Amino acid sequence: MSKLRVAVLGAKGRIGAEAVRAVEAADDMELVAALGRGDRLETLVDSGAQAVVELTTPASVMGNLDFCVRHGIHAVVGTTGWTDERLARLTAWLDGSPETGVLIAPNFSIGAVLTMRFAEQAARYFESVEVVELHHPGKADAPSGTATRTAQLIAAARARAGTAPQPDATVTALDGARGADVDGIPVHSVRLRGLLAHQEVLLGAEGETLTIRHDSLHHSSFMPGILLGTRRVVTTPGLTFGLEHFLDLN
Amino acid sequence: MSKLRVAVLGAKGRIGAEAVRAVEAADDMELVAALGRGDRLETLVDSGAQAVVELTTPASVMGNLDFCVRHGIHAVVGTTGWTDERLARLTAWLDGSPETGVLIAPNFSIGAVLTMRFAEQAARYFESVEVVELHHPGKADAPSGTATRTAQLIAAARARAGTAPQPDATVTALDGARGADVDGIPVHSVRLRGLLAHQEVLLGAEGETLTIRHDSLHHSSFMPGILLGTRRVVTTPGLTFGLEHFLDLN
Amino acid sequence: MSKLRVAVLGAKGRIGAEAVRAVEAADDMELVAALGRGDRLETLVDSGAQAVVELTTPASVMGNLDFCVRHGIHAVVGTTGWTDERLARLTAWLDGSPETGVLIAPNFSIGAVLTMRFAEQAARYFESVEVVELHHPGKADAPSGTATRTAQLIAAARARAGTAPQPDATVTALDGARGADVDGIPVHSVRLRGLLAHQEVLLGAEGETLTIRHDSLHHSSFMPGILLGTRRVVTTPGLTFGLEHFLDLN
Amino acid sequence: MSKLRVAVLGAKGRIGAEAVRAVEAADDMELVAALGRGDRLETLVDSGAQAVVELTTPASVMGNLDFCVRHGIHAVVGTTGWTDERLARLTAWLDGSPETGVLIAPNFSIGAVLTMRFAEQAARYFESVEVVELHHPGKADAPSGTATRTAQLIAAARARAGTAPQPDATVTALDGARGADVDGIPVHSVRLRGLLAHQEVLLGAEGETLTIRHDSLHHSSFMPGILLGTRRVVTTPGLTFGLEHFLDLN
Repeated sequence: MSKLRVAVLGAKGRIGAEAVRAVEAADDMELVAALGRGDRLETLVDSGAQAVVELTTPASVMGNLDFCVRHGIHAVVGTTGWTDERLARLTAWLDGSPETGVLIAPNFSIGAVLTMRFAEQAARYFESVEVVELHHPGKADAPSGTATRTAQLIAAARARAGTAPQPDATVTALDGARGADVDGIPVHSVRLRGLLAHQEVLLGAEGETLTIRHDSLHHSSFMPGILLGTRRVVTTPGLTFGLEHFLDLN
Repeated sequence: MSKLRVAVLGAKGRIGAEAVRAVEAADDMELVAALGRGDRLETLVDSGAQAVVELTTPASVMGNLDFCVRHGIHAVVGTTGWTDERLARLTAWLDGSPETGVLIAPNFSIGAVLTMRFAEQAARYFESVEVVELHHPGKADAPSGTATRTAQLIAAARARAGTAPQPDATVTALDGARGADVDGIPVHSVRLRGLLAHQEVLLGAEGETLTIRHDSLHHSSFMPGILLGTRRVVTTPGLTFGLEHFLDLN
Repeated sequence: MSKLRVAVLGAKGRIGAEAVRAVEAADDMELVAALGRGDRLETLVDSGAQAVVELTTPASVMGNLDFCVRHGIHAVVGTTGWTDERLARLTAWLDGSPETGVLIAPNFSIGAVLTMRFAEQAARYFESVEVVELHHPGKADAPSGTATRTAQLIAAARARAGTAPQPDATVTALDGARGADVDGIPVHSVRLRGLLAHQEVLLGAEGETLTIRHDSLHHSSFMPGILLGTRRVVTTPGLTFGLEHFLDLN
Repeated sequence: MSKLRVAVLGAKGRIGAEAVRAVEAADDMELVAALGRGDRLETLVDSGAQAVVELTTPASVMGNLDFCVRHGIHAVVGTTGWTDERLARLTAWLDGSPETGVLIAPNFSIGAVLTMRFAEQAARYFESVEVVELHHPGKADAPSGTATRTAQLIAAARARAGTAPQPDATVTALDGARGADVDGIPVHSVRLRGLLAHQEVLLGAEGETLTIRHDSLHHSSFMPGILLGTRRVVTTPGLTFGLEHFLDLN
């Protein structure tokens, strides 16, 4: 079986360098190009790349994808900064190249994606849901983006199912004790030396609780998701937003 | 909106008595009969029951279901002891009453059902999976039936997806340290005073872990599943095996 | 060996009734009286009680202890509402009866007492400490009294050792995300159906974390502490405040 | 205040190199020598070292300590392989240099040391105790040395206190389900990709459980213990075995 010919854009960044190693180590892939800032995109065509892993910057990503789509090269994109306007432009480009596929994934960690998916699925069946996220103390924002997104997905799932508001008899509370309110879901942020990135979704019903916990210990956890995305994007024309669409959850 | 007319069979047992209270407390249901050992099944017809919750014994369940199906009364069944032969007889009865629905559920805890479902879905995406179940020290069997079933579902999902065997470099081990082997999945049983029934599925990949934990604190946790099953069985003709088929996991 | 003659005051309350059963079940104790509201205290003398378990109300406790101390009956006290003024009066009574012992314990759960003790001991050795307490959603106050007390003990231990302030680079935070501030220790309160009373102390240093978790599942967890206190108070004259003083932590 | 003059032996090993950086970063210490294989021990004297951190090999450690003790240089030792015979020789050397201190620590992680200490202290107050240790799948032995040692300490503490055997009604068990038996304490070993080194001690009594969990994420977690040991050894003549003796647990 011939191997999938893969290039990495942003190959000198921390995640990009790891992606280069992951592609090289994959039995079913061949690394045909590893481009950094200033390298010529034509190398992608010359090297016969079938798919690129795009890990650059918001300033570079649109130019890179324009080139890829015009040349029928599929793309897996980890670069952030997506607006409705950018997505509309990308979609228009893909309309002109109907066999090309692009996957944009805000998170390549399969564990994080599954945590959000399972939390969303379970949310309507439990009276109470809260989110606790725990990170190293160098983190600037609280809650984390992932925790906020998780709480929003939970809240939306409960709204769709018509779930009743959460029970909470709190009368006297110290400021902050009950966490931040994200669309009605309490979210608590712990900052602790020794931790990296962790999240717990706690769901409670009469007589039972369900806890879904994700521990992220290293950004190497993105590699299985990047490889999986690369394998699937080449047979999935058009725009796919979110790695969850490429997981077989049956 | 008219209420669903529900009867409970086995109403004097511990779970049955709780089901009686749960049906009475449900806004959309009316308890029309609560039968114990020796009570006449004709009461179901007289009371106009549309659905029964069957919580009796293996010795009684077949007679009860024969009566229900013949009279077009839907049934939600928690009684255990199902063999292929019994299921075949029940299916034949249902063939003769094509609008009647029967749900048999080995477990009515929504948390337990979701834990198994999520573990099964996630299993193929992680190199390593182990199960730790924790119960009170009065439990006679180890591992628990739920843990064994969970491990079997995980193993089957990995086999279907062609997942590689789990990594394990253990060379020197004390007997029992690495747990019981259930279809290749290590299962560990903790017995601790103060606990009731708990289960943790641990999944690990490069750089990340996902943990799904179910804590069962009281058999009242079966009631939401029994009510959900009752609401759904009346519009689901034929035999359904497993509460998971009535959960909307989208 | 002769058994310790024990009486229970407040024997008809929920905890009191359980204490009656616990004393009856203890091999080394004999229940000689079980008094409720309106019963005569002289019964304690008539029954030859050597120790009482005092589980009444703030309105009754002082009268009860006055009687006990005057008659040389040792006491284990779970009733709350202790002020400096009340403690001073009790101490004065005990000065006049130098062989009598009284134990006042804000918490008889050995697990809760050990959690606080261990957290206090460990606090100075970790850069970061946070407390997460989790309770059923019917609880009126947040954080729980136990969590507040735990955080205060941690803060005091760090102050005594001269520990540096906790690292926290948070710049942007939703209101409440970082919890309540109790003497500089963040405390987070989760309220979830299906839970009872749980507390986690998280301690983090470079490269490692230590977590101490207490799960309280039933107020029967107070009984071992009440029995232990009763056995020890009869040989410990004077006032002892806190069950931790009766634990052998060597 | 003058700084403590510290040398590192085994400075080119993985832990040794980290110790060099830790000493350099400590406000109250000055790194005066960093010796590797083949370097002359006389450098210790020339550099005026007051204390050494000994992180070499069982083949080198006795020669190094002989030299240090003869020259009145205190030592903190992480090298393993201690036998009764070796300890006796070291003690004899120290008898001849009564102001010199040596600390030998099998584990410099303060979190691991506290976990063992707390488990030992709590063990007698709970009916049930089990240990679950979780490591990366490249580990060769099961259970881990730390888990075995923890279970032995727990068992010894229970024996000293005359604690009853653990309750366990298991009648039917799959081989290995109930873990390995270490002096009567069940120990369970989980091996999971994505994990490093983790240990949980679970203690259970009527109505409550206490869990002490240690997560070790990086060997940088040894540094605070090494520095603490160095500060204390210079004022603690003679042999100290175990970092726990230098922790103030009050």
